[in-house]
Amino acid sequence: MSDLLLTNVRPMGGAATDILIRKGVISEIGPGLSAAGVAVEDGAGALVIPGLVDAHTHLDKTTWGMPWYGGRKGGVLQSLIDNERNERIPLGLDVHRQSMRHAVGLIASGTSHIRSHVDVDTDHGLTLLEGKVRTREALAGLIDIQIVAFPQSGLMVRPGTYELLDAALAAGADIVGGLDPSSMDRDPKGSLDAVFALAEKHGKPVDIHLHEPGELGAFTMEMILDRTAALGMQGLVGVSHAFHLAMVPEARISALMERIAALDVSIYSTGHPSANVPSLARMRAAGIRVGIGCDGIRDTWGPWGEPDMMHRARIVGMKNGFRRDDELELLLDTASGAGAASIGVPGRSVSVGAVADLTLLAGETLAHAVVLDEPRPLVVHGGKVAARAGKAVVEAP
Amino acid sequence: MSDLLLTNVRPMGGAATDILIRKGVISEIGPGLSAAGVAVEDGAGALVIPGLVDAHTHLDKTTWGMPWYGGRKGGVLQSLIDNERNERIPLGLDVHRQSMRHAVGLIASGTSHIRSHVDVDTDHGLTLLEGKVRTREALAGLIDIQIVAFPQSGLMVRPGTYELLDAALAAGADIVGGLDPSSMDRDPKGSLDAVFALAEKHGKPVDIHLHEPGELGAFTMEMILDRTAALGMQGLVGVSHAFHLAMVPEARISALMERIAALDVSIYSTGHPSANVPSLARMRAAGIRVGIGCDGIRDTWGPWGEPDMMHRARIVGMKNGFRRDDELELLLDTASGAGAASIGVPGRSVSVGAVADLTLLAGETLAHAVVLDEPRPLVVHGGKVAARAGKAVVEAP
Repeated sequence: MSDLLLTNVRPMGGAATDILIRKGVISEIGPGLSAAGVAVEDGAGALVIPGLVDAHTHLDKTTWGMPWYGGRKGGVLQSLIDNERNERIPLGLDVHRQSMRHAVGLIASGTSHIRSHVDVDTDHGLTLLEGKVRTREALAGLIDIQIVAFPQSGLMVRPGTYELLDAALAAGADIVGGLDPSSMDRDPKGSLDAVFALAEKHGKPVDIHLHEPGELGAFTMEMILDRTAALGMQGLVGVSHAFHLAMVPEARISALMERIAALDVSIYSTGHPSANVPSLARMRAAGIRVGIGCDGIRDTWGPWGEPDMMHRARIVGMKNGFRRDDELELLLDTASGAGAASIGVPGRSVSVGAVADLTLLAGETLAHAVVLDEPRPLVVHGGKVAARAGKAVVEAP
Repeated sequence: MSDLLLTNVRPMGGAATDILIRKGVISEIGPGLSAAGVAVEDGAGALVIPGLVDAHTHLDKTTWGMPWYGGRKGGVLQSLIDNERNERIPLGLDVHRQSMRHAVGLIASGTSHIRSHVDVDTDHGLTLLEGKVRTREALAGLIDIQIVAFPQSGLMVRPGTYELLDAALAAGADIVGGLDPSSMDRDPKGSLDAVFALAEKHGKPVDIHLHEPGELGAFTMEMILDRTAALGMQGLVGVSHAFHLAMVPEARISALMERIAALDVSIYSTGHPSANVPSLARMRAAGIRVGIGCDGIRDTWGPWGEPDMMHRARIVGMKNGFRRDDELELLLDTASGAGAASIGVPGRSVSVGAVADLTLLAGETLAHAVVLDEPRPLVVHGGKVAARAGKAVVEAP
């Protein structure tokens, strides 16, 4: 059933109207619509926006719903990575169960698309991927999940990982992942050549975690941009975090952003509260496709977060120093329609002809809706009701 | 009624026990307590900690519960200050009503003490103070409110403000406020001499907003420390924000923190998400009394925030990059018992002889309680129930 009549909703905060969905696509918008035999949902005056998009998360990592995990470590990135790799099995972190909990939480809070990394390493092989592929299948029709095969423990520094990534891409992963080719892999040329070789071989996009600071990050970014241009991969490459875009001199940031936009490379930001993060407004003004994401949620790395893109949007907004209504609207767009475009899902909007991935929000205006911490009244995915009053139509294990 | 028997609570996350309160003070802690004629509250296994403390907020500024305010501005600090001063009256921002909403929200979420600034300026005179003094009286016995007479629009740059601050301190304000003596007042010597003269005249403490960056902020901090020493005001001076303590070179930060601790000057941090903020762990390790606060809540400056110190603690924790349980415990202590000491209310703890300002929290452990976004089961102020299940025993207008 993907026909639906949504009554009394306010598209993008505008006047109340009705939306008729036929075969999962918005077929008509106007007041007083009716359609015989079509299920009706009363929006009760709620705002309606395109479905929320979590452009960067890790469904395989959360301890959500498990007993409190008190073993988190401090220290450098490598110690967090090692702690997680060593703790997964003793902790009983079942990826299918945990990714279901995480993803069902995102459905309940209005998310229509997730891009999630999954660790591929020589300790776990493809087992984590398998758990997540089962979750993607279990939730098909309620949320779309893109899976990035992610060498969390390193690619060049862990022989055997390349072959595992290759196998992961054949076994259901949609995107080739990478991680800090310079600072982690100690071989930016080798690491990036490997990632792009896999992308070419499998005809799949690339999404690289780039935490590297300052000029090191800028250098690695240039190498990513060089390969994007050389291989004609415009529109198929994403870089997550990109902290360096908040750390190098102003003129260099402008030049890098210009080139990133020209090569249509997407940037994914989580608004990391204790790091330097690139300016969302500046990236959008430069014409870069930008998505935002929840990143890890109460995992072995850190205790923070909720499976809710509105919660994350507020963190990103505060981090960016947003105050004005137009800034909050830009933020909400980045968390929904523009975020979808940033992960290769264009055209999500509240307009005739668009796929009916829609989220209802409480609030007087779009800006008000951003700061209101209230359950989503209704979530529609491809014309089908996925959640009501903050509760998904499916239950997590 | 300030006798109360709390049963089945876990002090600081320890084993379940009972707490007997007599005349507002904890008189006994142990399992299986009983007391004839004393009201009993079943804690149902919740954690219990000293009451939360909001060491830096602005009860006179919030638009909470009013229609959405869409007129927020960007730009420099001065433009935010001017916008607020000009918008208060047209907006109908009634300080008594709004400060009641804000403070009742803080009671409901477990706060026992608030230190709140109130704007004193030549446009509004003492009218804002009057509204807040009424709130303090209306909520007496449920929450303690300290009022800082705060020259938000400047002291030296707005003739007549000194006299108004003098009058405010005679009319119910508890503490002398100040604001950026160098960058805003353009006369650090004149501004600080005026603030400390008022403190001497009225025998009251000092609390200065210091946003000034880098070496400018460090310079102003030194001038504050000089006066603290010269006037023997150890333990009576607080500095809010102190962004410079995250901006000057490492060795200079250490030296400043050492002197701040030696002169027993408190630092109040809001964990400002888009500014450089001093390290909470480093300040605590240096022996500085530290409090944290919500700052403004959905006011004319910015749309963010909730009247809830646990919400704020999470923002401060994320900003500080806290991950480990011991870091979350330090954070919770700073938001409660240590925060109370930082605003001149020593001795708040869950132990025999302590004043019974107590907040119950859901969670398995203290660290878990920090990240759980759930209503406070019970809030006790001076032995009296102030809130139950996330709802204060009084209603805001």
